[in-house]
Amino acid sequence: MHDLKEYFAEVTALVNAELDWLIPETGQGPESLRAAMRWSLFGGGKHFRPALVFAVGRTFGAKDEQLVRTAAAVEMIHTYSLIHDDLPSMDDDDLRRGRATCHVKYGESTAILAGDALQVLAFQAIAEDERLTKDTRLELVVGLASASAKMVVGQQLDLEGEGNDLSLEEIQNIHANKTGALIAFSAIAGAMIAKVDPATLESVREYALKLGLLFQVTDDLLDVTKTTEQLGKTAGKDLGAGKATFPSSIGIAGTTQFATRTYNEAVEAITATAEDASLLKNIARFLLERES
Amino acid sequence: MHDLKEYFAEVTALVNAELDWLIPETGQGPESLRAAMRWSLFGGGKHFRPALVFAVGRTFGAKDEQLVRTAAAVEMIHTYSLIHDDLPSMDDDDLRRGRATCHVKYGESTAILAGDALQVLAFQAIAEDERLTKDTRLELVVGLASASAKMVVGQQLDLEGEGNDLSLEEIQNIHANKTGALIAFSAIAGAMIAKVDPATLESVREYALKLGLLFQVTDDLLDVTKTTEQLGKTAGKDLGAGKATFPSSIGIAGTTQFATRTYNEAVEAITATAEDASLLKNIARFLLERES
Repeated sequence: MHDLKEYFAEVTALVNAELDWLIPETGQGPESLRAAMRWSLFGGGKHFRPALVFAVGRTFGAKDEQLVRTAAAVEMIHTYSLIHDDLPSMDDDDLRRGRATCHVKYGESTAILAGDALQVLAFQAIAEDERLTKDTRLELVVGLASASAKMVVGQQLDLEGEGNDLSLEEIQNIHANKTGALIAFSAIAGAMIAKVDPATLESVREYALKLGLLFQVTDDLLDVTKTTEQLGKTAGKDLGAGKATFPSSIGIAGTTQFATRTYNEAVEAITATAEDASLLKNIARFLLERES
Repeated sequence: MHDLKEYFAEVTALVNAELDWLIPETGQGPESLRAAMRWSLFGGGKHFRPALVFAVGRTFGAKDEQLVRTAAAVEMIHTYSLIHDDLPSMDDDDLRRGRATCHVKYGESTAILAGDALQVLAFQAIAEDERLTKDTRLELVVGLASASAKMVVGQQLDLEGEGNDLSLEEIQNIHANKTGALIAFSAIAGAMIAKVDPATLESVREYALKLGLLFQVTDDLLDVTKTTEQLGKTAGKDLGAGKATFPSSIGIAGTTQFATRTYNEAVEAITATAEDASLLKNIARFLLERES
């Protein structure tokens, strides 16, 4: 896994440079809003979604300069959703990536507006990316919008499900919307930018859906098996909130088995499709084995 | 002004039918979210911004079927901004258009998510509008994103300005972002869809900027001269919150004069440009003379 650590570091550097250009430290508009956006954007996230844009894009022959803006936009949407999900009226979380959440640091109204701004700036960033054809930009806007709308649906279902005894199918539906949709889009975006053929796009979509599921399954496992210090965010949160999770539904052992099966399905989806699928396989393995 | 009442009613019917198709009463996703979006979308707004899309579009030869989706998208962005601005941590308003605000009716988390969803669905709606060329769709996405980002900036500046003694220039900057940007985009969108030449687009932009200013000036006047019942929203709110306004800065008489001058400038910008500018003139006059 040493290579993948370097890979994530490389992607983080590329994406952070693009984000720093898109939302610079000084410029137009109120400083507070800019600072709040940057606090959450540069909060030490893993950049898993941007890494996926790059991994799929590179695997199918896209250039880094064509991928970096979309990778940054995906991170902006992810960050906006974290800011809003952490709000007092939502998950009411004070800690994110080992630091104060946006509303704790900058106040609630600024946090809401920083999230609103990040969402819209992500669309503007893609629509204005002159390194991509207009057709590709429009495809990406539609795909990202669809994923972003699903995240809202997932969050609403998640909040409404608190304290209820949900079926595993219902839990999976929540996760497919809340986290799966943007992870799937990240992979598909890389394929769109590389202009792959429709059959390849389908394989990437299948791989991405399994990856999204694997992400949530391991997230649920970490929540019950790790400490707050290890995670850099509040551990045991799902249990405390009475939230339905994979472990609460099928147990820790069952969830671990389910994770391995989902990993195998993700790898199977992509193996025959790419000339060299090693990076995409490693990313799936990274999810299976992650410790935070 | 009889004609304009009919015109607004006609636009409202067209836009509401499109909105009802885009966000139907029953469909995918949680009912609560859908109900919250529809509560605010169909809350009896004047549809001034959609009316402007249609007015400019029709004046320069665009067809209604090319205009209606963008008009609906503008209304979605406007509605999202109202939902978020009304939140307890922002303007904390219970009343909007004579009814309970979204968070009062559906709770705070649902209101935040309904706003988030409306913002992103507006972009998706335009990007997927097959009645427009891909070039036009992309232009509209960029323009709407830029306006939507400015609205966030305006709201942040507005909140930070509360209780401070702002200059008229500072007040105008807040309004130019908070309300002017989307009004300007509404007019420009109509011109983009009609594919006018660059000189005409500039005249429309000038008209739209004056219109945006006129909107805010008359809004400020109504806040101090009308009752809550007459307005359908809390009157005297700006004064109570210690907000800087045109009347608090240059008095009621000075503001009334300023409104008339701005109206004349808007009319002047458009008169020589359009073959028949009567609709656009009437819209400016509607703003000057509005009572709510």
